[in-house]
Amino acid sequence: MSANPTLVNAFRGGIVESSHRGALAIVDADGGVHTQHGDIDRPIFPRSAVKVLQALPLVASGAAERWQLTDEELALACASHGGEPQHAQTAAAMLAKAGLDVAALECGAHWPYYDGSIKALAAAGQQPSALHNNCSGKHAGFVCLGCLMAEDGDRRAFLKGYIQPDHPVMREVTSALQASTGYDLTQAPVGTDGCSIPTYAVPLRHLAHAFARVATGVGLSPGHARAAARLRAAVAVAPHMVAGTGRFDSCVMERLRARVFCKVGAEGVYCAALPELGLGVAIKMDDGNNARACEVVMAAVLERLLPLDDADATFLHGLSDLTQLNWNGMTVGQLRAAPVLRGGAGTP
Amino acid sequence: MSANPTLVNAFRGGIVESSHRGALAIVDADGGVHTQHGDIDRPIFPRSAVKVLQALPLVASGAAERWQLTDEELALACASHGGEPQHAQTAAAMLAKAGLDVAALECGAHWPYYDGSIKALAAAGQQPSALHNNCSGKHAGFVCLGCLMAEDGDRRAFLKGYIQPDHPVMREVTSALQASTGYDLTQAPVGTDGCSIPTYAVPLRHLAHAFARVATGVGLSPGHARAAARLRAAVAVAPHMVAGTGRFDSCVMERLRARVFCKVGAEGVYCAALPELGLGVAIKMDDGNNARACEVVMAAVLERLLPLDDADATFLHGLSDLTQLNWNGMTVGQLRAAPVLRGGAGTP
Repeated sequence: MSANPTLVNAFRGGIVESSHRGALAIVDADGGVHTQHGDIDRPIFPRSAVKVLQALPLVASGAAERWQLTDEELALACASHGGEPQHAQTAAAMLAKAGLDVAALECGAHWPYYDGSIKALAAAGQQPSALHNNCSGKHAGFVCLGCLMAEDGDRRAFLKGYIQPDHPVMREVTSALQASTGYDLTQAPVGTDGCSIPTYAVPLRHLAHAFARVATGVGLSPGHARAAARLRAAVAVAPHMVAGTGRFDSCVMERLRARVFCKVGAEGVYCAALPELGLGVAIKMDDGNNARACEVVMAAVLERLLPLDDADATFLHGLSDLTQLNWNGMTVGQLRAAPVLRGGAGTP
Repeated sequence: MSANPTLVNAFRGGIVESSHRGALAIVDADGGVHTQHGDIDRPIFPRSAVKVLQALPLVASGAAERWQLTDEELALACASHGGEPQHAQTAAAMLAKAGLDVAALECGAHWPYYDGSIKALAAAGQQPSALHNNCSGKHAGFVCLGCLMAEDGDRRAFLKGYIQPDHPVMREVTSALQASTGYDLTQAPVGTDGCSIPTYAVPLRHLAHAFARVATGVGLSPGHARAAARLRAAVAVAPHMVAGTGRFDSCVMERLRARVFCKVGAEGVYCAALPELGLGVAIKMDDGNNARACEVVMAAVLERLLPLDDADATFLHGLSDLTQLNWNGMTVGQLRAAPVLRGGAGTP
């Protein structure tokens, strides 16, 4: 297997100190490859980057309407959030609408990603709950879907084990993933995600195609197409819910709103839907680095593809070519998208 | 430039989810290469991995004796510590012995690396000081050296700007680095480290050679040889000072004591001295990943090189082939040293 190309370089003292290899696919709604770097046909685990695909049944089933979920709540269903107070409260509100509470969540608990919330919890002498889990909104969405599916039955009993691949809720979720990616998940490698649901390995080509479908509705069932548009609109209204303070997804969408839907996944994965261009983007960094690798690649992709005014171009360039400071605030280096991302359209 | 080999793989669902490339040099005190993987002649920034080399003048100058530094204090001078109470207190004690306090430190302040100390500070409503900076012990060592060099002069005035390359203290430190690595630093790329002192790019071959010299004393001046032995002995007594709770360096040396001196550096660097084998080890991961890449490589190297009883072999194997759990405590994957590290001696 030949090595994927270097997509990001970290400079210090004028030389490359570290670098990040990876692969990138940009695909249109017909499956045509717009840009390709590296191996886009090897199945990779998309992790949390596909939460919007996993949330399609929540809307398409009518559950979002049944429980009158707000934009904030639908955005949280697509989120890997920082466990800030509004994230935890919104997850709790979703569960309450379906008549349940935090006990219904099967994602496990962890300390918030957001530094300020760790300190606030510690200062208050509190421990985190499953509501602070970065996936609590996605799981609250699963619970809302399950409560609709349970009909008049015992909701708690029906939901038990909803994280298992063969549970009716997870079968709906997996079915939406298969339909949107067009990839046969029955043959795909399957792993367990951080929040305990299955994650299926899908090639970047198919992930980018799925996001082009999310961007356009083309190739999706009418129900999924409406759901995708509804979720994109919700996130454009409430981008803070998708990630949080200072986080890339929220910062980019607070600025560009409905022009971009982007979502990070663990282990260096990034997906995006670009409605005005009808394109989907999927990135996987070989080393699994998120914060400084796949985000820089995504910023460079957006900078290159989207027509931008000067202010937006400057904003994105600040994310694809970052100055690195040390503890004394001295400039010590730069983090830069590799030249290959600035140049031509890439191989075919 | 051909790609360095994959040294660590992260598995999930039975497939490689992410992987880490890098280079490794194992060299003897005469400069003979015992093992080589990847490019060991490209200069790389060693960052904090060379703190023991930077601490040689503290001992060789007589400053450690003059200020009656303890094992704990000498170990802290070689540390990238977690900012735990005993780390911050020990740095303060070093400064007090030289008649100074935290105001003398020019490393900057940051929140402790150790999670428990972040929460404890937040719970107490406190902010971190320069004593919590992971480099505070190294800087306290620079201050102790400077206070000896200042003789009867104004210590504070003499020390001002000790982080600058041309300050007498930093010239001593750089001179020790040059003497031990045998690499011409006047021609080397130079960057600024996180704690604001210069960092010089040195090939892994020379870094490994320096650590073989630290392991044996061979090739060092008598003063540096005695200093290296003193620092290794101090760290073997007080390994908790070098890193902290749950950290690789401390855990490995708490177990193997004087058999190993190992030290991590930022951006995926690792160096070690193995006295009983007369070997030095130097690792650089291309992607700069520390916690899960260069540590796994170092564990595999130690496992392979050192004669071990079953308990120590099991301990190290647990660090070179790790089970990964998710938030619910389910096994979701493995982090494993690549086969190339288990096999032959590597290319020459």
